Amino acid sequence: MAKIKVVEGVLKANDAIAESNARRLAEHGVRAFNLISSPGAGKTTLLEHTLEHYTRPRRNGANRFTSRASGWRIGVIEGDVATSRDAERIETFGVPVVQINTRGGCHLDANMVARALDELPLDELDALFIENVGNLVCPVGYQLGEEAVVAVLSIAEGQDKPAKYPALFRRAAVMVLNKLDLVPHCDVDVDALVEETRKVNAQLEIIHASCRTGDGLDAWYAWLDKRLGTREA
Amino acid sequence: MAKIKVVEGVLKANDAIAESNARRLAEHGVRAFNLISSPGAGKTTLLEHTLEHYTRPRRNGANRFTSRASGWRIGVIEGDVATSRDAERIETFGVPVVQINTRGGCHLDANMVARALDELPLDELDALFIENVGNLVCPVGYQLGEEAVVAVLSIAEGQDKPAKYPALFRRAAVMVLNKLDLVPHCDVDVDALVEETRKVNAQLEIIHASCRTGDGLDAWYAWLDKRLGTREA
Repeated sequence: MAKIKVVEGVLKANDAIAESNARRLAEHGVRAFNLISSPGAGKTTLLEHTLEHYTRPRRNGANRFTSRASGWRIGVIEGDVATSRDAERIETFGVPVVQINTRGGCHLDANMVARALDELPLDELDALFIENVGNLVCPVGYQLGEEAVVAVLSIAEGQDKPAKYPALFRRAAVMVLNKLDLVPHCDVDVDALVEETRKVNAQLEIIHASCRTGDGLDAWYAWLDKRLGTREA
Repeated sequence: MAKIKVVEGVLKANDAIAESNARRLAEHGVRAFNLISSPGAGKTTLLEHTLEHYTRPRRNGANRFTSRASGWRIGVIEGDVATSRDAERIETFGVPVVQINTRGGCHLDANMVARALDELPLDELDALFIENVGNLVCPVGYQLGEEAVVAVLSIAEGQDKPAKYPALFRRAAVMVLNKLDLVPHCDVDVDALVEETRKVNAQLEIIHASCRTGDGLDAWYAWLDKRLGTREA
């Protein structure tokens, strides 16, 4: 019983900090997206494509984070149990990035994100992508201050994941169904997967994509444009 | 500070129950293997192959769990956040199986396994496979009473996982590197993956396999035979 009370307390404390993060982001006009998936589903590669699409090389130091496609300025928080590899991949795009190492922890929490926000030039950003620790279970329970959760699912994980790990797919606003180039080489039924996902969350937007080939990512950019385009000044 | 103390308490309580599970399994001559991986890495398919290899159809109710290959009698505990799908897949082999649903929980703990052991005919078993919740982080911290941890890694997750999630690969006795049939279709360097894994754990036995084609599984059966063959009567 005492154990359960503590866990509730931790989650309540987390939610309070998440609300504070959300207020702080809103004050700076930054929209945050919390990317959650299994390890190796393709979150970082999705971000690399997204940065390639939206950012342009810095020119004489001016407007260095400005989006090529729409003017969006993007920052990234990378969450990992260990290593700074993902942040190093993101850094090559010249966008502000902070790596959080959880040192064994299975998810990001709002307090970690609050400290990462201290390191980011929030006044220079419109969008913030927070790449969570690769884990289909634990990150779902922790609000970070994001305005939307983005689920990424690799088709190579099999078609039963939305039914077996329903919480993420209930909470997400959009799912990028990734690695569809592998369908001919996997025993998986994409239609059945989509049908099962719809049973878990009928409102979930599902984007069919391959981050390896780039196929389908236009729908992802369109989703982001719609989401970012509705920003209330 | 109080929070950390509680977590330590939970882990200590878990370890005490795990030791009790281990004693109980030893008394019945059962060797337990704790299978840990990301969601969709192929744990259940590996078990299906293993049961296909070791068990034979029941004949007149006699010796119904007897191994075809070596006389080993096998039972299974399936851990999932939701659904009993994996247990249903295992049940078709006619072996004793118990499904644990964690209802949102991110790992099996020793107490869940203790209750599952109550439901298994331990006197009729030689080996017990415990398929953990698909999660590369949390299950690693919880002893269940197993004699060895088996890591399963899908090559489709990319080559950086042992470096980014080192705890599992440190604790495991063997790693089944699965889905190698996908190598021609993924941007992954298997040699680099093996080298990185060796840096995390030089003693880890690495088995190259494809559970889709069955390639390489002879090395897995050989590892199991060696492990089970050394049983002290």
